[in-house]
Amino acid sequence: MMRLSTPGHARFSQANQFEVTFGGAEANAAVMIAQLGGDASFVTRLPNNPLGDRTVRELAARSVRTDHIVRGGDRLGLYFVEQGASQRPSQVLYDRTQSAIAQAQENDFDWTQILAGAAWFHWSGITPALSNHLPGIVANACAAARANGSKISFDMNFRAKLWNAAAAGKILAPMVRDLDLCVCGVEEARSVFHLNGGSPSDMARQLRDQFGARCVAIPQREAATAGRTLWCAALFVDGSEYRSRTYELEIVDRIGAGDAFTGALLFAMRRGSAPQEIIDFAAAAAALKHTIPGDFALVTLSEVEATAAGGKGGRVQR
Amino acid sequence: MMRLSTPGHARFSQANQFEVTFGGAEANAAVMIAQLGGDASFVTRLPNNPLGDRTVRELAARSVRTDHIVRGGDRLGLYFVEQGASQRPSQVLYDRTQSAIAQAQENDFDWTQILAGAAWFHWSGITPALSNHLPGIVANACAAARANGSKISFDMNFRAKLWNAAAAGKILAPMVRDLDLCVCGVEEARSVFHLNGGSPSDMARQLRDQFGARCVAIPQREAATAGRTLWCAALFVDGSEYRSRTYELEIVDRIGAGDAFTGALLFAMRRGSAPQEIIDFAAAAAALKHTIPGDFALVTLSEVEATAAGGKGGRVQR
Amino acid sequence: MMRLSTPGHARFSQANQFEVTFGGAEANAAVMIAQLGGDASFVTRLPNNPLGDRTVRELAARSVRTDHIVRGGDRLGLYFVEQGASQRPSQVLYDRTQSAIAQAQENDFDWTQILAGAAWFHWSGITPALSNHLPGIVANACAAARANGSKISFDMNFRAKLWNAAAAGKILAPMVRDLDLCVCGVEEARSVFHLNGGSPSDMARQLRDQFGARCVAIPQREAATAGRTLWCAALFVDGSEYRSRTYELEIVDRIGAGDAFTGALLFAMRRGSAPQEIIDFAAAAAALKHTIPGDFALVTLSEVEATAAGGKGGRVQR
Amino acid sequence: MMRLSTPGHARFSQANQFEVTFGGAEANAAVMIAQLGGDASFVTRLPNNPLGDRTVRELAARSVRTDHIVRGGDRLGLYFVEQGASQRPSQVLYDRTQSAIAQAQENDFDWTQILAGAAWFHWSGITPALSNHLPGIVANACAAARANGSKISFDMNFRAKLWNAAAAGKILAPMVRDLDLCVCGVEEARSVFHLNGGSPSDMARQLRDQFGARCVAIPQREAATAGRTLWCAALFVDGSEYRSRTYELEIVDRIGAGDAFTGALLFAMRRGSAPQEIIDFAAAAAALKHTIPGDFALVTLSEVEATAAGGKGGRVQR
Amino acid sequence: MMRLSTPGHARFSQANQFEVTFGGAEANAAVMIAQLGGDASFVTRLPNNPLGDRTVRELAARSVRTDHIVRGGDRLGLYFVEQGASQRPSQVLYDRTQSAIAQAQENDFDWTQILAGAAWFHWSGITPALSNHLPGIVANACAAARANGSKISFDMNFRAKLWNAAAAGKILAPMVRDLDLCVCGVEEARSVFHLNGGSPSDMARQLRDQFGARCVAIPQREAATAGRTLWCAALFVDGSEYRSRTYELEIVDRIGAGDAFTGALLFAMRRGSAPQEIIDFAAAAAALKHTIPGDFALVTLSEVEATAAGGKGGRVQR
Amino acid sequence: MMRLSTPGHARFSQANQFEVTFGGAEANAAVMIAQLGGDASFVTRLPNNPLGDRTVRELAARSVRTDHIVRGGDRLGLYFVEQGASQRPSQVLYDRTQSAIAQAQENDFDWTQILAGAAWFHWSGITPALSNHLPGIVANACAAARANGSKISFDMNFRAKLWNAAAAGKILAPMVRDLDLCVCGVEEARSVFHLNGGSPSDMARQLRDQFGARCVAIPQREAATAGRTLWCAALFVDGSEYRSRTYELEIVDRIGAGDAFTGALLFAMRRGSAPQEIIDFAAAAAALKHTIPGDFALVTLSEVEATAAGGKGGRVQR
Repeated sequence: MMRLSTPGHARFSQANQFEVTFGGAEANAAVMIAQLGGDASFVTRLPNNPLGDRTVRELAARSVRTDHIVRGGDRLGLYFVEQGASQRPSQVLYDRTQSAIAQAQENDFDWTQILAGAAWFHWSGITPALSNHLPGIVANACAAARANGSKISFDMNFRAKLWNAAAAGKILAPMVRDLDLCVCGVEEARSVFHLNGGSPSDMARQLRDQFGARCVAIPQREAATAGRTLWCAALFVDGSEYRSRTYELEIVDRIGAGDAFTGALLFAMRRGSAPQEIIDFAAAAAALKHTIPGDFALVTLSEVEATAAGGKGGRVQR
Repeated sequence: MMRLSTPGHARFSQANQFEVTFGGAEANAAVMIAQLGGDASFVTRLPNNPLGDRTVRELAARSVRTDHIVRGGDRLGLYFVEQGASQRPSQVLYDRTQSAIAQAQENDFDWTQILAGAAWFHWSGITPALSNHLPGIVANACAAARANGSKISFDMNFRAKLWNAAAAGKILAPMVRDLDLCVCGVEEARSVFHLNGGSPSDMARQLRDQFGARCVAIPQREAATAGRTLWCAALFVDGSEYRSRTYELEIVDRIGAGDAFTGALLFAMRRGSAPQEIIDFAAAAAALKHTIPGDFALVTLSEVEATAAGGKGGRVQR
Repeated sequence: MMRLSTPGHARFSQANQFEVTFGGAEANAAVMIAQLGGDASFVTRLPNNPLGDRTVRELAARSVRTDHIVRGGDRLGLYFVEQGASQRPSQVLYDRTQSAIAQAQENDFDWTQILAGAAWFHWSGITPALSNHLPGIVANACAAARANGSKISFDMNFRAKLWNAAAAGKILAPMVRDLDLCVCGVEEARSVFHLNGGSPSDMARQLRDQFGARCVAIPQREAATAGRTLWCAALFVDGSEYRSRTYELEIVDRIGAGDAFTGALLFAMRRGSAPQEIIDFAAAAAALKHTIPGDFALVTLSEVEATAAGGKGGRVQR
Repeated sequence: MMRLSTPGHARFSQANQFEVTFGGAEANAAVMIAQLGGDASFVTRLPNNPLGDRTVRELAARSVRTDHIVRGGDRLGLYFVEQGASQRPSQVLYDRTQSAIAQAQENDFDWTQILAGAAWFHWSGITPALSNHLPGIVANACAAARANGSKISFDMNFRAKLWNAAAAGKILAPMVRDLDLCVCGVEEARSVFHLNGGSPSDMARQLRDQFGARCVAIPQREAATAGRTLWCAALFVDGSEYRSRTYELEIVDRIGAGDAFTGALLFAMRRGSAPQEIIDFAAAAAALKHTIPGDFALVTLSEVEATAAGGKGGRVQR
Repeated sequence: MMRLSTPGHARFSQANQFEVTFGGAEANAAVMIAQLGGDASFVTRLPNNPLGDRTVRELAARSVRTDHIVRGGDRLGLYFVEQGASQRPSQVLYDRTQSAIAQAQENDFDWTQILAGAAWFHWSGITPALSNHLPGIVANACAAARANGSKISFDMNFRAKLWNAAAAGKILAPMVRDLDLCVCGVEEARSVFHLNGGSPSDMARQLRDQFGARCVAIPQREAATAGRTLWCAALFVDGSEYRSRTYELEIVDRIGAGDAFTGALLFAMRRGSAPQEIIDFAAAAAALKHTIPGDFALVTLSEVEATAAGGKGGRVQR
Repeated sequence: MMRLSTPGHARFSQANQFEVTFGGAEANAAVMIAQLGGDASFVTRLPNNPLGDRTVRELAARSVRTDHIVRGGDRLGLYFVEQGASQRPSQVLYDRTQSAIAQAQENDFDWTQILAGAAWFHWSGITPALSNHLPGIVANACAAARANGSKISFDMNFRAKLWNAAAAGKILAPMVRDLDLCVCGVEEARSVFHLNGGSPSDMARQLRDQFGARCVAIPQREAATAGRTLWCAALFVDGSEYRSRTYELEIVDRIGAGDAFTGALLFAMRRGSAPQEIIDFAAAAAALKHTIPGDFALVTLSEVEATAAGGKGGRVQR
């Protein structure tokens, strides 16, 4: 998607320019992986017009492979962002009606070929919300992934402006099975999947037991305004819980932080880090994303590692 | 529509900001009339979201009445503009799929009430291109206008990116009848309506004879690059031809110049000017529009009159 | 007034651009009311030049009625704003000498006609500071309001760069009588009106007893730097005190927050809310104004209500 | 003065930022001289506020001496500029009412001391338009200059928005005597001084005979739109006429071109160039000024000489 | 190189921002080829720092292969650009001292491996000017190209700010032999290689006879200011001359136009076009480059073909 | 140096513009002194090109004397700044290789003449890091200062990207003797000079005893992220310690805060303030610098005094 953001803290009703960047849940995760030095390919459908071309180039510039992107359809999905401040929340206005991906058909994607050799297939809960065809397309991809020996990761990303929790639960519940990684907030698990309890470990247990999720990662945001937040995360593997430190963050742009978290989780799992290292690394990536304008987590491996190791940002690097 | 323009001469593939302005053929004509001191009401359908609200406010700020705008639908129509230069033409990329107006139904508009007391009803050939329902909606409006005693004006505005000439001709030909003003380029008349001949007067005659157009205005652009053009226009009334002077223009932004021309024609006809005055005035308005960023012709009555009277722009007003 | 602000945190001595917005105490209150869906008309005098025209349009775009604005005079009042940060306070530099409103004469305004049907007349303590004629003009307006059955509200807004406290007190004391609403800070009440005591309730009592103010609203700002502040307010009605919660605010632009407070008070009083609701609503409006660039409180009724209901801004609306 | 310009070709009614630069007729001439390596001191009165401070610094940054600038008064003179294009002329909106210099009194300036050692005293016809005191102040300066042995130069700079031609003629005619250099356009000479004839040499002769102008320089602008112009100038010395070549100019910003011309004339006369060299040099400076944003002619001696020698600008310097 | 350009027509002495783009003669030619759909790899040496990383990404985003870029060295080469206007020429200020490529050693590049499978090796006359080692490095590349069966193309690009014509001629003459394509201006050929005569055909003949250039392409710029120029080119193959039409161009940014010409020549030769088609195509590419900000020719194959076919840019594509 | 900063919080990998400002340790201290009304001359070597000219003008605009700046050399030193946020530290990327000052030779500066009449000579530990010649050049300056009766001040400013602590210690230790003022952080003293202990007073004692520093000033930064910090400082004179209050700062731009501290120390010492006043004043200056974009501390004497007196910034000055 192309993201059109009001500059500074301007409201939609007053902005005379929009900043042009690019993003989307799975794209952001792919960029995170590529930034860290991993190999990531982004699969979507984009229109055959200059905005579609631009989107491909923006991903290529961040070293994401784009050779499985299908071209066609009427329009590029857009979303408008108004950065909040203090007590005023940020606003996202989706404009994805009849976007190229929303118009996609099952036979647009040959998943067996796309996923050949892929270690992981990652999808988010946003995609099935975009059309009637997309749940089937994603299900096909999951089936091909399993057949192919690829692991599967899922990030809930429930968006109330795209569908309601009941609809989401009905569509997603049958799709979310046999996951190697499930990323899901406590509140989303409760509202979409009707899980009980209030703690991350409550949710992780049920996601494992009911949905077969082998690893569960749960991000937590607390005491937040639009400008400041506490942020931490927990990873649940083999019945154990691993918690990151809690970051106290001044927010530049929090959109994409969850996707950076997921991307960094996948990167760290793929390189075989220990669970505590994985969650520390992924939380550091998410923390840093809050400081970067745009959806993409434009940080390097060494920056994430320095933050995970306790760097606080207070010293000018010179 | 919201218009998103790359700044300066940047291409879509390189712009990192878009300028946000508002426009559209009929809206531009309405703004022109209101800028000149006339009374204009803009009728459309806009979504119930912050971008729809913003569009209403932008029109209100230019003194166009907005009380007949219907609210509802999924999204605001957008269009992207890349300003050309020299041999590189400007590009317009429409993004109007499933816009609120494209989703409009016949019963969204009570034309009898909307047009009560209106001296003129103006529509452009773009509108019927946007959906299957819109030709009927416009036809209803024309019928109500005739019943109501309002005059009708039509501006061809053929857009090859919205439909092809054959489709346009088929839809428009039955709608374009009994016009009090018809604005149409020579080439459009040929391709859409299959008229013969090459001169403005050839076209004007046929538009009168075949389509019942009482007044015909024909703008002409020659020797143009993206940065410079010759521009003039002719008005055909009661069998006589009235020509404006030919302007040699350095172009800042030519989008909306035709709409300014039409708006100024309507304003001048409404105040009862003589034909030569009308065409001189409207051509001056169109010439000035070429110098103003955005779709709207942000000029005053006295500025148009000064240009029509021969002002060349070379003297700083101080 | 036109407001010219340095971008970001740039100082006057380094800025190469000024952001152009519009504001002023009463205009801001009017915009707040109109944003909330109320009916507000702004009365002032503006020059007959493009900057005066622009000011009218900016108000119209925010749905404020402008038909009682008188046109004439030499120049538009300006003010320059330099946003502070942390320990460096924001600076306002007034440039209102010989502005159109400062040149106004008593007979420029026919208050009986202007106030016909008005539920409220609101004025601020800034206006009488601008010329020798303005105290009389405002007094005429108050008299017409009383004759007309309009309620009267007054916001102190003492500005040390326009006059000193002694002069202000001398001019304002006789004008401030029989008020339906008086908005005044503790410190202003002490310095301008020589009231005693240190608490809001001390001040409210004296404003009621000495000046006949039926309702008194007292905003309080504490522990503030240029970037962060605590903010709350109290309303005194019929001998009772109603306090808002205390907001801990990260400041984008606090200019106009007091005017948003007053406008929201008037709106809530006009719709007949209970006192606790009124102060909660108005405090929420003031809190939100701190997050918006420019003088105008560009928020909606539902946003104010959501904040009043406890929304903290930490959740992206998507 | 501080100059506030709309960016690009934006109109006053649409600009959301103003570019901040500094200028004014005599200041521009002083900057031109300093840019060329000459010694120039600018004399005016500026307010004791951050905008006054800034103005001093901007001149100092261009190597103009500022030690004779008097500080005091209410406000800085401003002017707003809207760049025209093609048939739309540029607009200047003066906002100089009650500026510090307009409030100046005769005893603010000790001209004998200020002009000690000065080779030239230069003034423009704008200054006496600003207040009732300024004609006397300028007359004092001229008297001191003559007493002191300084030469005197005068640039007409008639501004219709400041006064009318009749008023200007009445004030200026007695002041304009015994000049070492008089810069005046043909049309100005006709309207303000009621001179006869239509050619530069007609005017030069009368300015010499009636006003005692030893050298007369006459700039000429032809065939101009807001974006393109022909520009040339003639110098009349000792009964001979010396003409520059005619420049065909694409205009970036023509404000200040006349002042650059005058400054370069003074510089070249001061270094003792021959008349043909003087007019060639000064015309080249004026031509280059048309290409530079802002009032100041930010060019170097070698650049002016290269242009005077025939450089056409078509070769990238690399 | 990173290019830092003053915005609009601002001078170095006044710009407060620099636009950041990327370019350089061979990089620009590579981008042109990749934009047209060809396969191009850019070979250079870039520092291991964020600016080096950025440069790689900018090329990747334009589909240029970057896998042969060597990383190391102290700094990224920079150049500063000030856009001229009218009579004021554009300025380029090189800042390439001790850039990573200037510090390169012969053994940094394994040309046999780099050029394996390459149809063409292209180099420009700028590169040998940057250090004492670079002539040898380029000579190694040429030798490897010949051994490898790659064709060789050379673009003179004489830069007076890097070396003088005598030094250039001494270094380049022995390197420029056995070329499949030689691009060289008439004046460069005269000053650097001491060729005689004044016409393109004179030069082409001598370049063929003395330097063994099989094809010679000669661009010509005439009647140019910084804002407008005539531009055409001629191609000499097998004793015949093929001329493009002459473009009358309004210049947005002409830097890189020559490189676009060369890149388009190589692309068209590689796809086996006929000589007239080749020169028409390459001239159209160069013409379009004049309209695009930055060094890179961000145009598509179909745009170049449309311009070569006579498109004048005067029609908005909508 | 010219400083090129990414706007807002943009990273090097995404910025499309750089903000252009000027700075450098000693220049910043000189500007601080001049801003406060003191007399400061900046000595360096700058290239003879437009960027060198610009640097001189920027200093002149801030009232720093520039007559001892030597002109010559290949290039202007640059540095790139990426503003961090929260946990992401700010990045400085030096680009000073072969800058004009790094190429300076001993005989470029006649220190006896330069320092004639100077009350103080100030240098920072950055300068000797820039070339092999600079330690000798600085040593010459120190010798001339001592011969001349000027006091000497030294600010450590250790920069790990320019040299390592061991190299710094080896070069600086013999140069740092007989100082009238030594500004040095605790950690720098430990790593560069191998001093023991952890408190400011430990360090101050050893700097006095081992290096003959008569006054020692030690700034302290704690609990810092890129956006917030605690900041205080201590001054050690005649065996006593004087501490400033601790500022809790929201950071706009902290680069140059240490230099503002040193400049304000020198200013306050020069005007003979008492030690507690000196440290309070200098700490206030440093605190305010954190709020100002760019290296220069653009504050006035009265602003520093108001902050030193306890002003917290929370009140708009109007």
